Amino acid sequence: MHFVSDNQSGLHPAVLKALAEAATGTAAGYGEDALSAAAEAAVQDIFETRCAVFFVTTGTAANALALSALCPPWGAIYCHKGSHAQNDENTAVELYTGGARLVGIDGEQGKPALEQMRAHIETAKIHGVHNARPGAVSLSNVTESGTVYTPGELAAYRALADEHQLHVHVDGARFANAVVSTGATPAELTWGAGVDCLSFGLTKNGGMAAEAVVIFNERVAEQFEYRRKRAGHLWSKHRYLSAQWLALLEDDVWLKNARHANDMTQRLAAGFYERAEIDVPWSVQANEIFPVIPGNIRLALRDEGLQFYDWPAKADMTRFITHFATTVSEVDAALAIIASA
Amino acid sequence: MHFVSDNQSGLHPAVLKALAEAATGTAAGYGEDALSAAAEAAVQDIFETRCAVFFVTTGTAANALALSALCPPWGAIYCHKGSHAQNDENTAVELYTGGARLVGIDGEQGKPALEQMRAHIETAKIHGVHNARPGAVSLSNVTESGTVYTPGELAAYRALADEHQLHVHVDGARFANAVVSTGATPAELTWGAGVDCLSFGLTKNGGMAAEAVVIFNERVAEQFEYRRKRAGHLWSKHRYLSAQWLALLEDDVWLKNARHANDMTQRLAAGFYERAEIDVPWSVQANEIFPVIPGNIRLALRDEGLQFYDWPAKADMTRFITHFATTVSEVDAALAIIASA
Amino acid sequence: MHFVSDNQSGLHPAVLKALAEAATGTAAGYGEDALSAAAEAAVQDIFETRCAVFFVTTGTAANALALSALCPPWGAIYCHKGSHAQNDENTAVELYTGGARLVGIDGEQGKPALEQMRAHIETAKIHGVHNARPGAVSLSNVTESGTVYTPGELAAYRALADEHQLHVHVDGARFANAVVSTGATPAELTWGAGVDCLSFGLTKNGGMAAEAVVIFNERVAEQFEYRRKRAGHLWSKHRYLSAQWLALLEDDVWLKNARHANDMTQRLAAGFYERAEIDVPWSVQANEIFPVIPGNIRLALRDEGLQFYDWPAKADMTRFITHFATTVSEVDAALAIIASA
Amino acid sequence: MHFVSDNQSGLHPAVLKALAEAATGTAAGYGEDALSAAAEAAVQDIFETRCAVFFVTTGTAANALALSALCPPWGAIYCHKGSHAQNDENTAVELYTGGARLVGIDGEQGKPALEQMRAHIETAKIHGVHNARPGAVSLSNVTESGTVYTPGELAAYRALADEHQLHVHVDGARFANAVVSTGATPAELTWGAGVDCLSFGLTKNGGMAAEAVVIFNERVAEQFEYRRKRAGHLWSKHRYLSAQWLALLEDDVWLKNARHANDMTQRLAAGFYERAEIDVPWSVQANEIFPVIPGNIRLALRDEGLQFYDWPAKADMTRFITHFATTVSEVDAALAIIASA
Repeated sequence: MHFVSDNQSGLHPAVLKALAEAATGTAAGYGEDALSAAAEAAVQDIFETRCAVFFVTTGTAANALALSALCPPWGAIYCHKGSHAQNDENTAVELYTGGARLVGIDGEQGKPALEQMRAHIETAKIHGVHNARPGAVSLSNVTESGTVYTPGELAAYRALADEHQLHVHVDGARFANAVVSTGATPAELTWGAGVDCLSFGLTKNGGMAAEAVVIFNERVAEQFEYRRKRAGHLWSKHRYLSAQWLALLEDDVWLKNARHANDMTQRLAAGFYERAEIDVPWSVQANEIFPVIPGNIRLALRDEGLQFYDWPAKADMTRFITHFATTVSEVDAALAIIASA
Repeated sequence: MHFVSDNQSGLHPAVLKALAEAATGTAAGYGEDALSAAAEAAVQDIFETRCAVFFVTTGTAANALALSALCPPWGAIYCHKGSHAQNDENTAVELYTGGARLVGIDGEQGKPALEQMRAHIETAKIHGVHNARPGAVSLSNVTESGTVYTPGELAAYRALADEHQLHVHVDGARFANAVVSTGATPAELTWGAGVDCLSFGLTKNGGMAAEAVVIFNERVAEQFEYRRKRAGHLWSKHRYLSAQWLALLEDDVWLKNARHANDMTQRLAAGFYERAEIDVPWSVQANEIFPVIPGNIRLALRDEGLQFYDWPAKADMTRFITHFATTVSEVDAALAIIASA
Repeated sequence: MHFVSDNQSGLHPAVLKALAEAATGTAAGYGEDALSAAAEAAVQDIFETRCAVFFVTTGTAANALALSALCPPWGAIYCHKGSHAQNDENTAVELYTGGARLVGIDGEQGKPALEQMRAHIETAKIHGVHNARPGAVSLSNVTESGTVYTPGELAAYRALADEHQLHVHVDGARFANAVVSTGATPAELTWGAGVDCLSFGLTKNGGMAAEAVVIFNERVAEQFEYRRKRAGHLWSKHRYLSAQWLALLEDDVWLKNARHANDMTQRLAAGFYERAEIDVPWSVQANEIFPVIPGNIRLALRDEGLQFYDWPAKADMTRFITHFATTVSEVDAALAIIASA
Repeated sequence: MHFVSDNQSGLHPAVLKALAEAATGTAAGYGEDALSAAAEAAVQDIFETRCAVFFVTTGTAANALALSALCPPWGAIYCHKGSHAQNDENTAVELYTGGARLVGIDGEQGKPALEQMRAHIETAKIHGVHNARPGAVSLSNVTESGTVYTPGELAAYRALADEHQLHVHVDGARFANAVVSTGATPAELTWGAGVDCLSFGLTKNGGMAAEAVVIFNERVAEQFEYRRKRAGHLWSKHRYLSAQWLALLEDDVWLKNARHANDMTQRLAAGFYERAEIDVPWSVQANEIFPVIPGNIRLALRDEGLQFYDWPAKADMTRFITHFATTVSEVDAALAIIASA
């Protein structure tokens, strides 16, 4: 029973089918093909706006390229101290921005505390040229704690950003799960709430290498294609990126996948809630749960074949993730083990 | 009849089959899976040495990352003035090296003239700290003129590099075609001839996004995994990179594909040689031919459905490329058109 | 009465005299002149070793260039969270290192807590390629809290650095004050304690733009001259950098200046100690004192003409600095005001 | 008799006097002092506009920082192939721009041929994202061949730049000599001719480290102070940069110095013109002359004590430079040697 990570999942059948259909024949390279045009249009459709869409290979590339367009090389990017960009993407942000600085902010439930963010910004402004210049806010939706932002919560960060002329970025490696969880539309969770740019990931949703930078702010989008190209993220056979997107967006496969993943986590959560020895400090709102499990129980779970991460944020904390291919029977088998461990 | 570019080709059936086989189940991410270990071993096998192998997405990424490990930020990289790194990869080399400089050298048949390269190096050395420091030589095999280097030719550049303590890089976006054309082994065309690092591409050979940085020099390989990671080129579902490699290396599919592509170009070449009005200034040694075709004939060829590039190196020059999926009947149809245009 | 900053002081007479003596005649440019050779030798003399010496213009340049030679672009640099490099030098470190990351560590008296540093390093190592790679330790001696490290304290950081193959850097913007305060020799406070590289500043000591990168580790020094040149920090009329150094090192002017500055701070400190309402939480060991002064007294001091900074580290904290040109009568006048405010 | 380089000259007496006057007392740091405000105003006065003025240490810093504000990291900068930025400033431009590329253009008299520049730009545009994006034109006035641009000549480059939305930069390391030579005003030679940004150097004119980035385009000037700061080029004791500028601009000392230097070169030129064996291929318009002198005469000149550079542009070419401190008697002594060699 594998609850380690959604990026260890395979390909959704629709993705494989799309790759097979695009396997033969020739097509223009570097995104000039018909599939790529269709895939970009499909993304615009779900966001109900003429956003700029750039498919790339990894979430690290999406985040770092996005932030390079949102923050100058001498800028500060305010994010939660547990954010993926800060902890799991090496120094990609520094490389692509030309030296901007991530400033990790504390906060409950994976969300940076607004007032602490404000204090950081104001201190930096007092220092002027001597300190990194406030440049951007970067939030993750779903957060690294498995919680989600509502449009209203995002708007509060936007308001702070407006006070200081900052851009707002969302790392949406699990954006589909946030859409399903909040019930908000993709538009409401992005430009409707003042988000300038989204890293939109479907790799964890059944794609192979399906990440996109989606830009809602025209000035930010300017010359972005040069950023992608010089980073080596413009595929020559670009249609194989695009095909994945078409496959997952068509017939709302991406949302069905996310709904299933979220449901599986809720089903799993019930088992943890029933154990008094196990605490679940973070709200379970998407496809991740972070139970705090005493060492002996943790050992027992693993002995019985449950696979999951230990999570460094708190002592004894663990992480369980479900995804599009997680089955009910896998979860139920896990529940039985959890109940008896 | 499509002779525009080998990167506009589709997927070799073996690649699609491998992706399908790897589509289900879970696997460790970021290259820690069994397929990735096998694919790296397969690359080591064909080079008959324990080289370091890093799969990446694009040839631009492979070249720029490779050069970043071979040349300091204040270094000069000597390449042919028509090289892909210089002309077709935006400023990726500058980004990844932290500001090193490509120095384009003239030379016949797509090969930088050794004596001119030596002169550049010596002038730079006289300038000392004021000029970019000689750092690396970068050659393309197959060259951008469709010619190939023999091991002996490579060794001459190595000798010059040794005089000045430079690293030697080969851009092998069409390395398979060079292997087949020269009859040399992969080892003889790389470390046997003093090459420190190869950008090894199989995307044009039937892969989807199948590029690798192969490093033969242990010190150059140090910490290279950090370079790839921070560039956003380490896939989370890395097995889908690796599967492509296994598919193409197994049973020498890559060499069969290259041999077929080279043969198709030779077959096509015969048609150009027969037309007195058409000049073919560069030796036809791999899967590309660059005929100089008067404007009226060019027009006629296109009217009859031949697709090919105009090539900026000389007036009236064109480029025709064949690949693993080019068929004999396509070539023969083209020959008929060429004969009668 | 001006206690705002030692970098707001003027030029020591010896410096002005040296500039005047070098004002006429011609000399080779870019550091190839006789004065520069003599100045480098003078630095080597005081460190009693053949270190590499590079004069530059500002402390920011010295720190950032030094760290670029000590830490790879994907590396982490561990420093105190209040360090100058982190708070007062914008993103110079990120620029010059090509994207390395400063990790601010808590700690008393301006010194990063060793165990917290160790924890950071170990966590990063567990994350492997996903996190910035531990690269260097950067300490300030004098610290930003006005305290000093003894050779023994430095050696403890060196031991941790050795466990993880890190380089050790010291920001010595007030190095002279640390030498005088500890009574240790320059050698004992640097290479003797395992320091690889020192940013050695004499601008605050009576120079005009007198900073140097002093490298004790031969491999770190390799090609460093290219770093300085491409940063635009190699003066054409380099002798005017060198002349400042000769002036200040000759006859131990730099140490006399530092001793005077330290003495003036001790004299001033006595006044604060006598006021029960004023707390001085950090040890007064060099030429800075950080009294915590209630708002009404602070106001009174300023009304009477005392100039000093408010210091953001703690509520009501202030900073008073003395320097080579601070006079006893200025301090005594300040003492009278402090006593009566 | 020293004709090697104007950057090997000493300090003009007015500069030394200004440094002495500013030597005592305290002043706000980092350019917040009164002298700095006055010096910036003085520069605005001579350009008759409210340009943005940033003093820096070296010409390399001025050029590279200026170009970083004029050209994106993926951009191409068109300059003469013999330009200082390309040949004598290592990879400073690449460092500060974040990877932009210098494209060296051929051309007579040190001026890039307009039509060749146009061809480069148009080729790059056809390549689109695959090639460096045309970003800026960089001209040197005085050129590296000792010639000058008139306002009309500059306007022709501006017109080309306008066609392609490029910025225009002038490297004015010897700008004073160009002003004197053309008889045009500083305004006419810069913003009047469409120049966006000038690297304005007075180091060779009698300064010590007196370089400035002068920006006439408001958008280019935005946040430029952050560029300077993170590069380590904002002096703490900034008044010692400013004092040099005030000294040289007051009473037109800079123009008198330039006029004298130009006159000395004209006086020297007469001696070369008289020798039939000596060719002077480049117009002598400022304070440099590049005579082509047969080897035996060259040897004789040096035997008699003349000091000058061999210049790599042509066989047997040499460079003689005069400056503010070159005396008539030195030139006359040289003339006697030239006549008899």
